[in-house]
Amino acid sequence: MPQHRTAGRDPGTGPQGAEREALRRALELAADPRVPLGPNPRVGCVLLDPTGRVLAEGFHRGAGTAHAEADALARAAADGVDVAGATAVVTLEPCTHTGRTGPCAQALIAAGISRVVIARRDPNPVAAGGAALLRAAGLDVDLDVPADLAARAAELNRGWEHALGTGRPLVTAKIAATLDGRAAAADGSSRWITGPAAREEVHLLRAACDTVLVGTGTAGIDRPSLTARRSDGTLHPRQPLRAVMGTGPAPQLLAVEGAGESVHLRTRDPHAALADLHARGRRHVLLEGGPTLLAAFLRAGCVDELLVHLAPKLLGAGAPALGDLGITSIGDALDLDLLDVAPLTSADGRTDLQLTLRPRPRRPAPAQR
Amino acid sequence: MPQHRTAGRDPGTGPQGAEREALRRALELAADPRVPLGPNPRVGCVLLDPTGRVLAEGFHRGAGTAHAEADALARAAADGVDVAGATAVVTLEPCTHTGRTGPCAQALIAAGISRVVIARRDPNPVAAGGAALLRAAGLDVDLDVPADLAARAAELNRGWEHALGTGRPLVTAKIAATLDGRAAAADGSSRWITGPAAREEVHLLRAACDTVLVGTGTAGIDRPSLTARRSDGTLHPRQPLRAVMGTGPAPQLLAVEGAGESVHLRTRDPHAALADLHARGRRHVLLEGGPTLLAAFLRAGCVDELLVHLAPKLLGAGAPALGDLGITSIGDALDLDLLDVAPLTSADGRTDLQLTLRPRPRRPAPAQR
Repeated sequence: MPQHRTAGRDPGTGPQGAEREALRRALELAADPRVPLGPNPRVGCVLLDPTGRVLAEGFHRGAGTAHAEADALARAAADGVDVAGATAVVTLEPCTHTGRTGPCAQALIAAGISRVVIARRDPNPVAAGGAALLRAAGLDVDLDVPADLAARAAELNRGWEHALGTGRPLVTAKIAATLDGRAAAADGSSRWITGPAAREEVHLLRAACDTVLVGTGTAGIDRPSLTARRSDGTLHPRQPLRAVMGTGPAPQLLAVEGAGESVHLRTRDPHAALADLHARGRRHVLLEGGPTLLAAFLRAGCVDELLVHLAPKLLGAGAPALGDLGITSIGDALDLDLLDVAPLTSADGRTDLQLTLRPRPRRPAPAQR
Repeated sequence: MPQHRTAGRDPGTGPQGAEREALRRALELAADPRVPLGPNPRVGCVLLDPTGRVLAEGFHRGAGTAHAEADALARAAADGVDVAGATAVVTLEPCTHTGRTGPCAQALIAAGISRVVIARRDPNPVAAGGAALLRAAGLDVDLDVPADLAARAAELNRGWEHALGTGRPLVTAKIAATLDGRAAAADGSSRWITGPAAREEVHLLRAACDTVLVGTGTAGIDRPSLTARRSDGTLHPRQPLRAVMGTGPAPQLLAVEGAGESVHLRTRDPHAALADLHARGRRHVLLEGGPTLLAAFLRAGCVDELLVHLAPKLLGAGAPALGDLGITSIGDALDLDLLDVAPLTSADGRTDLQLTLRPRPRRPAPAQR
């Protein structure tokens, strides 16, 4: 629990409890599924009066639009609400740079805000320093929020943070396999390896990433739609870019009204493909296969997170879920850290497992361009 | 918590608490690792005076020796302890039949025991009815023990109970595989797929089963010792029968002083092999591979429980953990119920997963003899 500097506050129901509630609300606002994903972080902001009453809310709606703090201040002004002496609760440290919009830290100071609660430091060297600027201007700045809310604030923009640090999008690879590592039966049939709950989880993943990537081979065989759908078949409000990668002719993806844009990346090199996607403002790629493309990304050290949807089934034959990694001896096996194991239980009681893993750093692979 | 009929008892510290403690002790006695496994159930017995004080303990030490109740009564007699009016706490319903030893229910009645607490009903039709016999003789019989202790009592003899119901030993199959279903790398190397904690678990399994079974192929390639060892290399007090199965010449198992007996089952038919082992008094077989033998047992419907030790590694090539099941289409995949997922974490922090699964009943496979 955060230790606040103001004495006499009741953490459950007083202003501190109100600030926690406001942060939860700001996180919801930031994650609004109608906001298109892109090169900017998702941010939410709630303004509270000193008694903990909500004065205004705001969030960032994508590149070129107002930042969350500016959005909230504008809404307060439009409603004729005085924010002097108010508290601003934000999911990300207010920025200090002037891009297409002005610096938010300066806007909060100018509006007479007296206290700012911040869930996550801005890792962007260009925009950071907001907390220090606010403190220098005499505002009370609180970065000590509950750990679960801080984790949600970090999770919200992990693709963006990863790209800031590495210059390429975050890559989550997903495979669905039987216990014996098969992605299809001997006759090629693969619908369905996993149950409805696992497949629904994949659609949520697609809606949470900004890009879905498959190889031309998989696109040609499966003709996937690569949309993010709900279990009733309707589309999620946010659809990922549908990227197909490979040097062969680009197969047609299944045409679906409301699906995301599609693009053909004419390369077999994971680094080149990710550079291209980064240049397009993409920050989180869901790599959905096939086995050869997954192997290429693993060999290139370009998989940041691996999700394995493991079905409690055995096939004994059929296409393996993973292509050749060039590994011949057990000592050279690609090691991963197991981060999480979660059951994915469908309405019929059938349970698949979702394993979340992170490949351990390896010797860099030779360049493949 | 069990509802006892006698009023005024304190469940924590009075006679009822003493009975729970006595049952825990009886379960320990029954599971004594020095007792050789075999065709008889493991049973423990503790005698308490009406205040909850322990009068005597006993357990069954294997076929041909005294049953647990008779053992406890004999020890009380040897110590000159009067057991009239005492409570007998037993892990299994006292038997009613005369085999190589007399019926235990009759012995308890004759000794003047007034109350009997029973953790598990005897499923053996030849020996059952002990509780009714005791009640008819005026004894207070309590079958309502805490669920966790009842489960331990069932677990203790699950191979024996399975064999009573089916006429063949219980079969637990174990495989160790990478996330992509490989049991070895392309060059055949497989030491080690899993970490020390998983390997230690296998040795505990061997000590808990009465038979370890491998195919002649695996025995020839790996020359395993098939012993149950502790992590320091010493042998567990109880060693399983080491069975090698196949019609080819029987390869030599690694000679280890103190290892269990070894036997060559000259058949490829799982049903025939299990009938042979049952005739030898075996009730719980640990099937350790290889992939072809596992596939044969799965096809024959002869795997009751599958343990998958899943290593967070990828190989991309190498021998699959499971041979051909004759399945060509995804709709015919062998489905299993996932019963448990447990992490097996080694001292170096590395975690493998142990999945416990039960194959769902299938259409019976054609006879293979």
